[in-house]
Amino acid sequence: MPAGKPMYQISELQQIINEQISSKRYPVTPKELYEPITYMMGLGGKRMRPALLLIACNLFSDDISAAVDPAMAIEVFHNFTLLHDDIMDLAPLRRGNQTVHKKWNTNVAILSGDVMLVEAYKLLTSINPALLPDILTIFNRTAVEVCEGQQIDMDFEKQEHVSIEQYLEMIRLKTSVLLGASLKIGALLGGATSADAKLLYDFGVNMGLAFQLQDDILDVYGDPAKFGKQIGGDIISNKKTFLLIKARQLALGDDAASLQKWLTSSDLEAKVSAVTALFTKLGVRQLAEAEMERFAEQGFASLGQIGSVPETRKELLRSFANRLFVRES
Amino acid sequence: MPAGKPMYQISELQQIINEQISSKRYPVTPKELYEPITYMMGLGGKRMRPALLLIACNLFSDDISAAVDPAMAIEVFHNFTLLHDDIMDLAPLRRGNQTVHKKWNTNVAILSGDVMLVEAYKLLTSINPALLPDILTIFNRTAVEVCEGQQIDMDFEKQEHVSIEQYLEMIRLKTSVLLGASLKIGALLGGATSADAKLLYDFGVNMGLAFQLQDDILDVYGDPAKFGKQIGGDIISNKKTFLLIKARQLALGDDAASLQKWLTSSDLEAKVSAVTALFTKLGVRQLAEAEMERFAEQGFASLGQIGSVPETRKELLRSFANRLFVRES
Repeated sequence: MPAGKPMYQISELQQIINEQISSKRYPVTPKELYEPITYMMGLGGKRMRPALLLIACNLFSDDISAAVDPAMAIEVFHNFTLLHDDIMDLAPLRRGNQTVHKKWNTNVAILSGDVMLVEAYKLLTSINPALLPDILTIFNRTAVEVCEGQQIDMDFEKQEHVSIEQYLEMIRLKTSVLLGASLKIGALLGGATSADAKLLYDFGVNMGLAFQLQDDILDVYGDPAKFGKQIGGDIISNKKTFLLIKARQLALGDDAASLQKWLTSSDLEAKVSAVTALFTKLGVRQLAEAEMERFAEQGFASLGQIGSVPETRKELLRSFANRLFVRES
Repeated sequence: MPAGKPMYQISELQQIINEQISSKRYPVTPKELYEPITYMMGLGGKRMRPALLLIACNLFSDDISAAVDPAMAIEVFHNFTLLHDDIMDLAPLRRGNQTVHKKWNTNVAILSGDVMLVEAYKLLTSINPALLPDILTIFNRTAVEVCEGQQIDMDFEKQEHVSIEQYLEMIRLKTSVLLGASLKIGALLGGATSADAKLLYDFGVNMGLAFQLQDDILDVYGDPAKFGKQIGGDIISNKKTFLLIKARQLALGDDAASLQKWLTSSDLEAKVSAVTALFTKLGVRQLAEAEMERFAEQGFASLGQIGSVPETRKELLRSFANRLFVRES
């Protein structure tokens, strides 16, 4: 357990989280229920959400020990959503390894996911009873929103038309609110007022929107050596990202016909370069970058409004967020 | 909300629960997330678990209003387990209606089930903060145990040998602990001491074991007009019930060979009557009934040990349990 200090380094917080994950022992039996949980939690990842929760707590308190279990709750919950999403998306791989439903089977993936969701709640029960009802309420609301976001995302695949507003609302629910909730819960555990906790929530949601827009851009324009996923994957699958939605709005005449034609093409390599060229011609990259900037600025503005914390103490959160922005473009 | 009285009738408690269910409005969108929840909750059922929770509360308190949301939490949780179990068991029907994964699809059933689990937790957050950590801990432990029971039940299908002890442990986890937890949570909400709540938990678990053994017996020997399910269904599917496990232990020579032969027969009608005849010959019905009696007596003994409640006040719980025993044999 951390001894407490004014400002932890990100690497120290990640070490705390990774130690929690690697030292966690689930029951040995039933094997097919618990082995997938240990497997899933061991696949790695940036541990961004629990790190944000601990940073937020540390903004208001030198002692972050009460935030460690809740930080793990968020990480277990996040991995539960990935596990069930992978079933729904028929995904064969997760972070370069077989997904649970591929390595075992769908029933195992459903049931071990269910247990992970309960395990997340188990990790919340140690919270100070004075804070527990409020934090449970935030967690419950967020959990439902993340499921709503996943449903809306699946609905988009069957919809011909998706607006930018609908797209932004989907990514807000599916990915951003959990970043906001992580920060808000951490802040409350650190003793923040509800007004300050709300400002951190807004920071997190806006950053989440900005990160997702960055992901959309990198999927098309990223450096293949740094991005980690196949460049053009969204184009190949006709994913209704900010770029595609905006391009379909802006394309006229020949451009519109060309875009429509390429969307149904089975020559995937030509499709990626043709659609990328259309995106560039239509200027949707700049529009996405401007929107990303707008969300990032809104987020930093919320952070700036937290008056009870000196600016120097906010540096870690600022640099963490900034690091996520330039990570691989 | 109920006004409070010394002893509610079962029908009054069921009315409270059914009103809660029928007045509950989930968000309208995303449709495929929320419609299945309303559908599933509307399929009916005996509402036994929330009724037990309210009865247990009413044992210790005239005012049961604080127990209504937690009773609903248990019913929503129970229906979540049915929804996900139906996917895993490939069940086409639930209470005579299409299962959610048949009526919609598997993805819808996974995700709306996930939301139901979170909705159950939402219904717990209104609990008095002084009791919330303990009740959450009971709920979490029980939820994990129910999942463990489901996994062990699925494991049994692939196992050649299952012992009576393993079988009883499986049904304890899969069905009995939730009855125990319903009673324990209700008791704590009514102001019971933890010792009395524990005695009610033991009553519930033992009753659950007895009910499941009764179900095993009725599946073979029940009155088709009253049982509601196909008589012999367990025999047809070679389900490793108390009766089959015991019969395989006791059958010798020709009986053992005959039983083994019938288990692989595709003449289902002949299989049901031949295996039933073997069960009768081997006396496994009487053994199951004796075991059922033993659990019921243990349960009633625990109820008897609750000294702080007058015997007259325990009558409702006794008669409710007894009614469940004779319901359709």
